[in-house]
Amino acid sequence: MKVINVGVIGAGRIGIVHLEALASCPDAKPIIISNPTVSKAKDAAAKFNVPEFTSNADDVINHPNVDAVWICSPSQYHADQIKACAKAGKHVFCEKPIATDMAETIEAINACAAANVKLMTALQRRFDPNFARVKKAIEDGQVGELVQVKLCSRDPSPPPFQYVKGGGGIFKDMAVHDLDMSRFLMGSEPKRILAIGSCHIDKSIEVLPGAEAYDTATIIVEYENERTATIDVCRQAPYGYDQRAEALGTKGMIQTDNMYPNTARLYLDNFTGNADMPYDFFMSRYKEAYVQETLAFCKALVHDLPSPCSGEDGLMALIMSVAAGMSAEQGRWVSFDEIPEVQACTDATHCEIYDPIEFALEPVHQ
Amino acid sequence: MKVINVGVIGAGRIGIVHLEALASCPDAKPIIISNPTVSKAKDAAAKFNVPEFTSNADDVINHPNVDAVWICSPSQYHADQIKACAKAGKHVFCEKPIATDMAETIEAINACAAANVKLMTALQRRFDPNFARVKKAIEDGQVGELVQVKLCSRDPSPPPFQYVKGGGGIFKDMAVHDLDMSRFLMGSEPKRILAIGSCHIDKSIEVLPGAEAYDTATIIVEYENERTATIDVCRQAPYGYDQRAEALGTKGMIQTDNMYPNTARLYLDNFTGNADMPYDFFMSRYKEAYVQETLAFCKALVHDLPSPCSGEDGLMALIMSVAAGMSAEQGRWVSFDEIPEVQACTDATHCEIYDPIEFALEPVHQ
Amino acid sequence: MKVINVGVIGAGRIGIVHLEALASCPDAKPIIISNPTVSKAKDAAAKFNVPEFTSNADDVINHPNVDAVWICSPSQYHADQIKACAKAGKHVFCEKPIATDMAETIEAINACAAANVKLMTALQRRFDPNFARVKKAIEDGQVGELVQVKLCSRDPSPPPFQYVKGGGGIFKDMAVHDLDMSRFLMGSEPKRILAIGSCHIDKSIEVLPGAEAYDTATIIVEYENERTATIDVCRQAPYGYDQRAEALGTKGMIQTDNMYPNTARLYLDNFTGNADMPYDFFMSRYKEAYVQETLAFCKALVHDLPSPCSGEDGLMALIMSVAAGMSAEQGRWVSFDEIPEVQACTDATHCEIYDPIEFALEPVHQ
Amino acid sequence: MKVINVGVIGAGRIGIVHLEALASCPDAKPIIISNPTVSKAKDAAAKFNVPEFTSNADDVINHPNVDAVWICSPSQYHADQIKACAKAGKHVFCEKPIATDMAETIEAINACAAANVKLMTALQRRFDPNFARVKKAIEDGQVGELVQVKLCSRDPSPPPFQYVKGGGGIFKDMAVHDLDMSRFLMGSEPKRILAIGSCHIDKSIEVLPGAEAYDTATIIVEYENERTATIDVCRQAPYGYDQRAEALGTKGMIQTDNMYPNTARLYLDNFTGNADMPYDFFMSRYKEAYVQETLAFCKALVHDLPSPCSGEDGLMALIMSVAAGMSAEQGRWVSFDEIPEVQACTDATHCEIYDPIEFALEPVHQ
Repeated sequence: MKVINVGVIGAGRIGIVHLEALASCPDAKPIIISNPTVSKAKDAAAKFNVPEFTSNADDVINHPNVDAVWICSPSQYHADQIKACAKAGKHVFCEKPIATDMAETIEAINACAAANVKLMTALQRRFDPNFARVKKAIEDGQVGELVQVKLCSRDPSPPPFQYVKGGGGIFKDMAVHDLDMSRFLMGSEPKRILAIGSCHIDKSIEVLPGAEAYDTATIIVEYENERTATIDVCRQAPYGYDQRAEALGTKGMIQTDNMYPNTARLYLDNFTGNADMPYDFFMSRYKEAYVQETLAFCKALVHDLPSPCSGEDGLMALIMSVAAGMSAEQGRWVSFDEIPEVQACTDATHCEIYDPIEFALEPVHQ
Repeated sequence: MKVINVGVIGAGRIGIVHLEALASCPDAKPIIISNPTVSKAKDAAAKFNVPEFTSNADDVINHPNVDAVWICSPSQYHADQIKACAKAGKHVFCEKPIATDMAETIEAINACAAANVKLMTALQRRFDPNFARVKKAIEDGQVGELVQVKLCSRDPSPPPFQYVKGGGGIFKDMAVHDLDMSRFLMGSEPKRILAIGSCHIDKSIEVLPGAEAYDTATIIVEYENERTATIDVCRQAPYGYDQRAEALGTKGMIQTDNMYPNTARLYLDNFTGNADMPYDFFMSRYKEAYVQETLAFCKALVHDLPSPCSGEDGLMALIMSVAAGMSAEQGRWVSFDEIPEVQACTDATHCEIYDPIEFALEPVHQ
Repeated sequence: MKVINVGVIGAGRIGIVHLEALASCPDAKPIIISNPTVSKAKDAAAKFNVPEFTSNADDVINHPNVDAVWICSPSQYHADQIKACAKAGKHVFCEKPIATDMAETIEAINACAAANVKLMTALQRRFDPNFARVKKAIEDGQVGELVQVKLCSRDPSPPPFQYVKGGGGIFKDMAVHDLDMSRFLMGSEPKRILAIGSCHIDKSIEVLPGAEAYDTATIIVEYENERTATIDVCRQAPYGYDQRAEALGTKGMIQTDNMYPNTARLYLDNFTGNADMPYDFFMSRYKEAYVQETLAFCKALVHDLPSPCSGEDGLMALIMSVAAGMSAEQGRWVSFDEIPEVQACTDATHCEIYDPIEFALEPVHQ
Repeated sequence: MKVINVGVIGAGRIGIVHLEALASCPDAKPIIISNPTVSKAKDAAAKFNVPEFTSNADDVINHPNVDAVWICSPSQYHADQIKACAKAGKHVFCEKPIATDMAETIEAINACAAANVKLMTALQRRFDPNFARVKKAIEDGQVGELVQVKLCSRDPSPPPFQYVKGGGGIFKDMAVHDLDMSRFLMGSEPKRILAIGSCHIDKSIEVLPGAEAYDTATIIVEYENERTATIDVCRQAPYGYDQRAEALGTKGMIQTDNMYPNTARLYLDNFTGNADMPYDFFMSRYKEAYVQETLAFCKALVHDLPSPCSGEDGLMALIMSVAAGMSAEQGRWVSFDEIPEVQACTDATHCEIYDPIEFALEPVHQ
């Protein structure tokens, strides 16, 4: 079987996560890594046996032996790097988001389509064994015809003021994952959206505009299949990273719980419960998902299959977060007909629903 | 200690539930029971050692020794019977609803207030040990400042077409309990409400008007304390009666699960899980709640305390269900300022929040 | 249907438990209660509507209208009172143990048999919905052919020194219930037994003789069906009253957990677990079992069925606890052939295994 | 930091497991692998980027650049290969058992001690995050002073007749892991042992001698600290691989559950429980433990620490399994004073209790 030669842009925290994931993937071999602070690229190369390193992302993109580029740079560079990859004929695995605004997102997607390179938006939750199991139950009809989807998503603690400010708010920087998950589970396109937000945790952000002032929000999405998904998000859960899904069908319900580092339970004189707290954030909670998304994209490259999570999927998640912000601000249902960019998305032919049966349910760690 | 002499109107299913609950209450003694089909009254009297029985509810209401009347008749008789009780100076324990329309509800409440008799709306879920525990965690600050409330409520299977038709729909005949529970847990008054409904289970009801056509709905209530409660209801849960609550606060979360007849778990070659299904409906699930609400009202009578769940509480639940219906129909947020009857409710002085610490957390069965 | 007129001996803690249980039983009516301190009998009579009270147990036993006597007196009086009941032709419901030594136990059993009155040993755990569910799974073949039984039994805290001293030790005053449960679940007679004890909690009892010096013990019982049951007991479980069973069969396993006052779970910054502790001791944990055993015995009386838990069952439990003590002291397997009193037990014709399907799985509180 | 050059003997199933584990370990690099069927060595070398392969284990042992040898060959070769490694001055990581009889085990241990090379017995369960968490709770005093240890260990299905025949029976081929775990958790040396076995699953093995005829067994081990550990094992658990531990202390209890591939729960009309079955056997269940033991031994090599699980630990586990067999056969407590080889073990200075806090609780996959 052909091995994919991978170039990695970025040796920061998420770059390291992807190097670890790539180490579990027999089909892929990182051959070069870049980072502006080149010493970080060098260290990562040493640790993960990557033969070359550089300070310049272009060296990665234009490396003659590189088949696919893993973009793990800050968000503002994504769109340009994707377009450069497309120009160089390299497949692209890009950390969410594709770009920071909608026009650039569409441009980047179109560039890949025109160059006939595969583009993967790394919405890793789709590849988490828990969420993938819910998807499978729906696809397989284990819960019957789908009736309703509910998602709960709470970060362990609020981000710094500077992160929130200018980030576009809770729908764009946080709920975007849940909006994508609701669409993934629903297997339908959104029709209209209703959102409401409020601030209860960190009152300092109340001065910020629009959805940036919220740390708590509830969203209802009505889909074309007439089903609704309900999402609640909060920037603080003192008990850890809270990520749960529930799907009700005509034959039953499936729901997922959070993940703990072990199964031990303690029974003391003042409490009986888990011996340890749930995983504390996405780096630990979604470790397996990062491996699975890597395997899934490598499989797509090796077998020339559609990207398991397309650029259009990333675009639609962004559109939904924008529409949620409009709804919360205007206190009304927002129809997706009102958002012109939806056209770019619904026209897409590659908006494949990832098949969790084939990919994600063969966990590497078993 | 004084024993309350109780008269019971109605020897149907719910009447029997209350006779059983009264049997657990040392402060109360049923002395007469009525039922139009007098043989049912006679049988119940024999089984529960009630000395007198009659076919005529007036014999109960006007019995010289009766201190309090338990109204367990069909809903359409409630308002008149409450008013007759008020006239006769008898305290009233009334199965929800107080009346079938708002004007009569207010009349009945006012009649009791004028006659200075206590009126209890039997919203039994407030007295369930599970929901009461959530309330206690909120009141005691165990979860910190409240951030959000979520309720899930699913009946085991849809009611007959004839029950749905003319019943006012899913918000009025089903979600009314959850709307009350959200207000109870929130400890605040509702500001505006958003609802959406759909039909996925029994397509025969789709021909019915308004909310009668829904078997699935989602509701967001924004309260005056700026917090939101999210409620999802469905007329069918193949796995049993599903009644769960979750409250997030600044210090943590509390959530309840459904109840099972035993703790046994089976581990077989194709499944590992509970040996038996959850309790199947309100008669089994809320058995303890029926006892606790009885104890709470008897305590209020003996010690001359406010009714633990007032007529105004019943009225507000009705108002909320009406507003939810408006919202779903009109596809918009409905403000409670738009509902004139709210005035009757918010003017009320007795709208006490029941204290679960004192009452419900001393379960009879321990 | 005939109502059983019941006389109750003893208005102490366990007497009150049985009065409460009798209140839930439509077939039984307490008509007289005795207690040496007559004021306690009077109070109990008032609270539970018992028409007569007395200081003299003989008044109960010889009351002309009494059909059955509930013996809730201290253990040393049991044997004589049973024999008096037999003489008076009254059926007997007797709190465990039948008597404090084996000879008297056999005498009491024989007296009842000779007088043709029913004798029930109130080993309430057999009627607990959780243990009864394990029995049902075994009987119904849900776990296939039985392979192994395991029981864990831990009291919340050690009893006072004076209770332990002279009580015969941990096998007799505590494990006796578990030995009976292992035999009940196994549905076979014990062949040999191995026990080992030690002291880790309250070192003051180490001076006591034999098994009185133990607060922790492990027992293996080999049954005639070649299966073994393993029992571990401890006088202290800081997290509450711990009572669990596990049965492995050729098709699967069934296990029970402890019981909690509600289903609420708390998720805080330093723990995630049950919001409240398990029930703290037998009075709360076995509340339902007390009701069920009462219903079962009343049913046996009304329908003239064998006692659901016979005197011989009580005798065998006693024999097993004695044999366990011998084993621990002598550090060897003790065969039941070595215990002559077993003869009285295995000769018994009434050693019926209680059928949990018929009785215990119709909980009163559903 | 120095990288350990590793030679691997054996490219069978367990050899592959260790190659995968080594891939997660930045301190170790496999440089040669051997297998008698050399094509398997070649395939493994290709898949895991091992530069050299051979059909001859001696090439591995005597390779000049190899620092440590991972022995993954069939058990009968272990002792000789360990001695050859010692002679060549190579550290040894050996799959359990060290040797198939006691004399050879001691010889192998002594050879390593004389050559001053480290010897690790790969008892991987000690490094499982769940069992390690129990150990930590005991070591840290979270459950107070230890009172009792209980272990349950059930294979998913019985091995073939040919595996059982001549394998020494259930204590030696199966319970040996649990005996070691009980000693590990107890942190004390065994004083006497009592075992009983029976056959309920596969009656064909009943013709085999001694403990080979058992598929079910219960063991009590009394330790020098006066505490007992109780172990039950069975060769069949239709619901999957069942591996649970429970430790009771004076302040509380800790217990572990089995592991599932995801957290999803299904609620259908005839069951509510885990959406998927537990991991089915040691390859999936102990995946993380294999990584952790590798990390722990590499750490010992890099920092010149004692072996985290010594040869003496392996020897003692073997001795305990032999003693259990004697007990079951002779129906009596067997004292470890009766086993002369214990001397070799208790004289050992390296019988270190592995510290789970330092090693195992830093899971690679977080």
